[in-house]
Amino acid sequence: MKLETRDIAIEHLGLPQHDSPLISLLPSEAGMFSRDTTRVIGDVVRQEESSPEVEIFERAGQRQRIFFDPAKTRVGIVTCGGLCPGLNNVIRSLVLELFHRYGVDHMFGYRYGYRGLNPAYGYEPTPLHPDVVDDIENVGGTILGSSRGQQDATIMVDTLIRHRINILFCVGGDGTQRGAQAIAHEVARRQLPIAIVGIPKTIDNDIAYCERSFGYASAIDQARRVLEAAHVEAKGAFNGIGLVKLMGRDAGFIAAGATVASQESNCTLIPELPFALDGSDTALLPWMKQRLVERKHAVIVVAEGAGQSLFDGSAGQDASGNQRHHDIGSFLEEQIKSYLKQHDVPVSLKYIDPSYIIRSVPANSEDAILCDQFARMAAHAAMAGKTNLIIGMMHGQFVHVPISMVTARKKRLDISSPLWRAVLASTGQPAIMK
Amino acid sequence: MKLETRDIAIEHLGLPQHDSPLISLLPSEAGMFSRDTTRVIGDVVRQEESSPEVEIFERAGQRQRIFFDPAKTRVGIVTCGGLCPGLNNVIRSLVLELFHRYGVDHMFGYRYGYRGLNPAYGYEPTPLHPDVVDDIENVGGTILGSSRGQQDATIMVDTLIRHRINILFCVGGDGTQRGAQAIAHEVARRQLPIAIVGIPKTIDNDIAYCERSFGYASAIDQARRVLEAAHVEAKGAFNGIGLVKLMGRDAGFIAAGATVASQESNCTLIPELPFALDGSDTALLPWMKQRLVERKHAVIVVAEGAGQSLFDGSAGQDASGNQRHHDIGSFLEEQIKSYLKQHDVPVSLKYIDPSYIIRSVPANSEDAILCDQFARMAAHAAMAGKTNLIIGMMHGQFVHVPISMVTARKKRLDISSPLWRAVLASTGQPAIMK
Amino acid sequence: MKLETRDIAIEHLGLPQHDSPLISLLPSEAGMFSRDTTRVIGDVVRQEESSPEVEIFERAGQRQRIFFDPAKTRVGIVTCGGLCPGLNNVIRSLVLELFHRYGVDHMFGYRYGYRGLNPAYGYEPTPLHPDVVDDIENVGGTILGSSRGQQDATIMVDTLIRHRINILFCVGGDGTQRGAQAIAHEVARRQLPIAIVGIPKTIDNDIAYCERSFGYASAIDQARRVLEAAHVEAKGAFNGIGLVKLMGRDAGFIAAGATVASQESNCTLIPELPFALDGSDTALLPWMKQRLVERKHAVIVVAEGAGQSLFDGSAGQDASGNQRHHDIGSFLEEQIKSYLKQHDVPVSLKYIDPSYIIRSVPANSEDAILCDQFARMAAHAAMAGKTNLIIGMMHGQFVHVPISMVTARKKRLDISSPLWRAVLASTGQPAIMK
Amino acid sequence: MKLETRDIAIEHLGLPQHDSPLISLLPSEAGMFSRDTTRVIGDVVRQEESSPEVEIFERAGQRQRIFFDPAKTRVGIVTCGGLCPGLNNVIRSLVLELFHRYGVDHMFGYRYGYRGLNPAYGYEPTPLHPDVVDDIENVGGTILGSSRGQQDATIMVDTLIRHRINILFCVGGDGTQRGAQAIAHEVARRQLPIAIVGIPKTIDNDIAYCERSFGYASAIDQARRVLEAAHVEAKGAFNGIGLVKLMGRDAGFIAAGATVASQESNCTLIPELPFALDGSDTALLPWMKQRLVERKHAVIVVAEGAGQSLFDGSAGQDASGNQRHHDIGSFLEEQIKSYLKQHDVPVSLKYIDPSYIIRSVPANSEDAILCDQFARMAAHAAMAGKTNLIIGMMHGQFVHVPISMVTARKKRLDISSPLWRAVLASTGQPAIMK
Repeated sequence: MKLETRDIAIEHLGLPQHDSPLISLLPSEAGMFSRDTTRVIGDVVRQEESSPEVEIFERAGQRQRIFFDPAKTRVGIVTCGGLCPGLNNVIRSLVLELFHRYGVDHMFGYRYGYRGLNPAYGYEPTPLHPDVVDDIENVGGTILGSSRGQQDATIMVDTLIRHRINILFCVGGDGTQRGAQAIAHEVARRQLPIAIVGIPKTIDNDIAYCERSFGYASAIDQARRVLEAAHVEAKGAFNGIGLVKLMGRDAGFIAAGATVASQESNCTLIPELPFALDGSDTALLPWMKQRLVERKHAVIVVAEGAGQSLFDGSAGQDASGNQRHHDIGSFLEEQIKSYLKQHDVPVSLKYIDPSYIIRSVPANSEDAILCDQFARMAAHAAMAGKTNLIIGMMHGQFVHVPISMVTARKKRLDISSPLWRAVLASTGQPAIMK
Repeated sequence: MKLETRDIAIEHLGLPQHDSPLISLLPSEAGMFSRDTTRVIGDVVRQEESSPEVEIFERAGQRQRIFFDPAKTRVGIVTCGGLCPGLNNVIRSLVLELFHRYGVDHMFGYRYGYRGLNPAYGYEPTPLHPDVVDDIENVGGTILGSSRGQQDATIMVDTLIRHRINILFCVGGDGTQRGAQAIAHEVARRQLPIAIVGIPKTIDNDIAYCERSFGYASAIDQARRVLEAAHVEAKGAFNGIGLVKLMGRDAGFIAAGATVASQESNCTLIPELPFALDGSDTALLPWMKQRLVERKHAVIVVAEGAGQSLFDGSAGQDASGNQRHHDIGSFLEEQIKSYLKQHDVPVSLKYIDPSYIIRSVPANSEDAILCDQFARMAAHAAMAGKTNLIIGMMHGQFVHVPISMVTARKKRLDISSPLWRAVLASTGQPAIMK
Repeated sequence: MKLETRDIAIEHLGLPQHDSPLISLLPSEAGMFSRDTTRVIGDVVRQEESSPEVEIFERAGQRQRIFFDPAKTRVGIVTCGGLCPGLNNVIRSLVLELFHRYGVDHMFGYRYGYRGLNPAYGYEPTPLHPDVVDDIENVGGTILGSSRGQQDATIMVDTLIRHRINILFCVGGDGTQRGAQAIAHEVARRQLPIAIVGIPKTIDNDIAYCERSFGYASAIDQARRVLEAAHVEAKGAFNGIGLVKLMGRDAGFIAAGATVASQESNCTLIPELPFALDGSDTALLPWMKQRLVERKHAVIVVAEGAGQSLFDGSAGQDASGNQRHHDIGSFLEEQIKSYLKQHDVPVSLKYIDPSYIIRSVPANSEDAILCDQFARMAAHAAMAGKTNLIIGMMHGQFVHVPISMVTARKKRLDISSPLWRAVLASTGQPAIMK
Repeated sequence: MKLETRDIAIEHLGLPQHDSPLISLLPSEAGMFSRDTTRVIGDVVRQEESSPEVEIFERAGQRQRIFFDPAKTRVGIVTCGGLCPGLNNVIRSLVLELFHRYGVDHMFGYRYGYRGLNPAYGYEPTPLHPDVVDDIENVGGTILGSSRGQQDATIMVDTLIRHRINILFCVGGDGTQRGAQAIAHEVARRQLPIAIVGIPKTIDNDIAYCERSFGYASAIDQARRVLEAAHVEAKGAFNGIGLVKLMGRDAGFIAAGATVASQESNCTLIPELPFALDGSDTALLPWMKQRLVERKHAVIVVAEGAGQSLFDGSAGQDASGNQRHHDIGSFLEEQIKSYLKQHDVPVSLKYIDPSYIIRSVPANSEDAILCDQFARMAAHAAMAGKTNLIIGMMHGQFVHVPISMVTARKKRLDISSPLWRAVLASTGQPAIMK
């Protein structure tokens, strides 16, 4: 088999020049170190009639030869965008891996996202050391703080030079990774020996080439509890409706996952699947009314990016450059109330918007394990001199993905997937609400 | 010592006429049965110079002689008002005590509060039996549903007669207990052999003569988690503020308890203690600005009934006859933002209103134990022919309290109490924010 | 009313000589400071025919005049005995109250119990400061470590003198408080200006004059989960028995509380109530067999101190001087198995001994509030120059209790109390198993 | 690409003959139904020099044509072996999918494992219906009960015939699946129209072709808490050691996962990696002593199947035919204590064996989702007339795996995998303890 590889260009940095200090820690038997030539294939499903083009990725992991001399390496870490369970775990495992295993002594956390790399804000970087990160994994949020939005790459690279940083880890979503790419390009333009390594962070689980992003499992754990609360509220009043808006700007993974985990939703609406409010028996409002009349209660889950086509015009953009969304939760609350009133059906609707409570929890076990591995893989990649990449995950394998691939497309929930079919089965909602 | 007792009038029902079936279950030694003459005193603190008038209550508990013949007794249960952790525990323990220990076979749950006693709504009562209530204590809310507001006592008593009910348990807050009192008066007017026994339900913990009401501890558990989330959000952004509105219509117990339990609030506002927005260094807004400038983050907790004097005019009443409150949470959000903007202090404020999520959880251990005991005490009181009372709790002792005493005043958080002093100590806020 | 008070002797220390720094923090209105003359009565239940002798306690709380000059005060804290949820909360609130509110700068934690006061062990004290104790309340155990057993009071007082300590807080059970008393006596003998203040710690909830000790509520939360596990195990196999040994050396409060909270036990055995293994239908083994035949599963809860009369001879003492107990859990496991085998009843018994998992958790909300208050009350007492006392709690009021009263007797679960009656009702076990 | 398929032989049953009732519920667009010809490949990692033999599996999912007529189909479900989180979720989703989506009316649960299929035990099957399984997913264990061990396939098939069962779902580990295979063979021998579909259950996560089995994630959640308890205990005493035995008969997945999730273990021992007790600095006992001397505490995690080579002779087999293991936990407790005593190092060792508490919890969110999907995939496979298979999972895709493949080998933790490397990094233990 000929491997058509997607190489992670070492670009201007050149080849690894040092033996890894991990050699002294690990047995010499084959297998403990990954080779640059090991590949992971991108698609595992085959149809008889077709032979799909196979995407192939470089496998992540510790390398026997590394690019940076640990004794002279200075590292920066920055966390950007909205809070997400596991950020502190990532910071902690980066610090521990680099300190204890590679012997890197000089590490700094930039404060409040990319703003920390812009001296105009005056935020001093925090020195990072195992003592500083001890136990932070048990607390939600990020000890570095965060913010949305970009800063000028020229200014940020100036900061890296001033601080003599060799490796910058950028933990964030696709906006953050576009920023990381801009920094990497500026670094390359100036031919600086600085590696830029991204760690994907998306509570929505919607980054491409990353089948499971950290924070997602913790979000489902919390969202499940909220759906249980909504169910209790719905049953606690005659014709009660519990309406819950969950995160999911462009992808319905959290809404779908919480639905299947809790088994309490009767109707789950996601960005990937437009729906009609009225006009047929299977449109949202008439279907909901019928359900209410028959069963006296209902739980509705709506991802924040669902139903945007029901609004006129754009809602603008946020500081991260993401398309802002119209508030589908409040919109549905009003639509449902007015529709039921019009049809003389009494209702007691409770609307719940729990996003801050969900995103600020510490990582659950699943995410704790994921964060630890993402962080250590990122440390290995950076020390080996890989740059302009993020750590991805395909079929349970960690891989190196060029940032350009990641920013080119987002992951969406496939409505023919087992997960969505499980949603339809557990809610009993019409497959098409039109 | 002469006991000036507050007798629970058996009123028109007359004296107990049957031996309790519990006699066969319990040892004959003294102590397992309570006597009507055992009293609990109402105030345990003494000052040298004064001898406070002592309130004295009849102690609750199983009696050796009972009024109703279990074989012929028919029981109704109704749950009213907002959801509160532990309602299902109360229903379950009532059913189990009456069935297994007293041998009562005929029990019914009225649906959706007092509406279930008004045939106009057409809600059929649910037969209750140990099989029906098995495991319901692990689910929040109430299997009977609830609603706010009163129904005509004449109509409700007609329903009791039609269903041949001998005992009605009314689980609810002070509005509900006023309803129970109206039913008891109508029952007495008609000289019916029906006992009306109230079980106090207030997540706010503000019912008089009930030092600890069920649901309160569970609410604090949940609210504590929300304060932790608010703290994470506050620290996650530069000059972050986490603003949390908690339950507490007229009393600040939940806000205070969650503050001390979490140790994360920097300022806690309660109905009992008015505060000024501006005008001095210790007023809310200037003080908060100073804190933000010094520490770069802050958590503020506000009970829903706090700061009402800052609004003009009344907000009306809800269906339960409670005074509606102006929305202090949103008001503070706007005030803080505009004040800080005016003083050129950047801020990232996250406002969290978690009430549905808090009140719909299952009872925690503390409340589970409390619910079980309230319910069994209520069963004992009713079987003994006590009526027009609620089960209260003074100094860890369950007591019989005439409903008229309970509806006459509400419990408030004493700002000279250890709890409030612990709030001041843990927040560091000015004792008087004026 | 003449208050026959139990004064907390200020003994050799003399009268308070300083204004409290809290005066500047608190409003001048009456009520924020407690007076030495305020009393709490000890018994709140009255029988018509008797007038019980009334125990009367000095109420705890902040005093306007204090004995120690905060600027010159040096404080030691020691935690002794078995781990208990809330120890770190107590340490933290002591440090915060003394530092932020009184202005005490010099605080030290002695390591590993009283051993830390004996230089022979070579354990250096840890300086304590708000930075050190930040967030420790979210972790179980004690940051100071603990150990069982006494050390020579002369040696310990020598250590206090060498470290120029003015106040020693001793957090521990009755063994620890006996140690504290010995230290106090030695201090008095030498006429040293050192206050010794005890904070009661007993996960078993068995210290006298302390109606609720911290750690107990958290223990019940955990024990409840274990009983649920035992119930699942019992139902998971034909004739399954889940046998759980819970803490409770001399008192059955944890076993009783977990039983009522979980409602899953079918038989709960406590030290206060001896039981027979065999010999009648209501003895443990025959009754259990009958239950198993009828219901196919059973859950049994046994406190570690239950059933000791079934063993011959003493099991000795532990390092704290507590009577060691025979292992009733393993004993019952064998007795049940052999009895059922003898009667040809198949059984699948799962024995669970979860004590380390229970006692090492962080404090739950209930205990977090309690710990904060105990600690701050202890700080107030010590600063006011009270000594040779512990902070007790009667009827929800914190009080000063001379250590001699506390070590004179232990609290036991009253089997005529509502808690035990609730156990009998929820298990359905015979009131007397003989 | 030529797909070398592993067909799931429909064997003697013949081709599907009915349109699926799901056709009316789902959109006609391609993708909602899976085809028998869709394949999933078994290995996703490629090395340049080699072209690994590719295992290829039939993808699971709903089919457009089905074999059994829902109106006439009678279904049996049996759960076998040790308890595992998620069993009730699987039962529930099987019942809901078959009832609501396929329209199957007649379903039965066999009690207590395969014994329920042997009339000699006299256990009557339980009729299953949506009402019966409502809410059972919130309770641990299995409502059907379980047992270990095989029964005679001839007798079990006789029972299926007598009950006119068309589909039997066997939920269990590899022993159970060997039993399922025996039933399938007997069914094939008699040419009966009965499908046998296995659902893999292994809390140890060690079934081949199933990259993630349900219950594993929940077990890690619980085990993580136990490791935190062990850490608290270890730090609570001078030279404290917390020694925890976790499940993992032949595979170390739970020990490894809990180690990385909690970050609290200092040494994790698994069946896949033998270790020496003594003889060099990196052997367990000398290394542990050194750690204790330096850090004063240590946490050790040992999977139950680890270190078996340290024992002489066999420990026999359990009723499921699994090799019994020597008790490595108690053995290590003794070895550590005696080694440290011999070297005059004081120690306070706490040994924790939490298996019943871990395995009896309800499924966490991760497992709840997994269970729902395994169950529905099994329903689809069975209705389509597939037999003698289990539902497997490869690279996130559900697949059909012949039982013979599953029973031929077990999954082991690859010590060159990122998970094990993360264990080494987080514990700091020697890679080879010899």
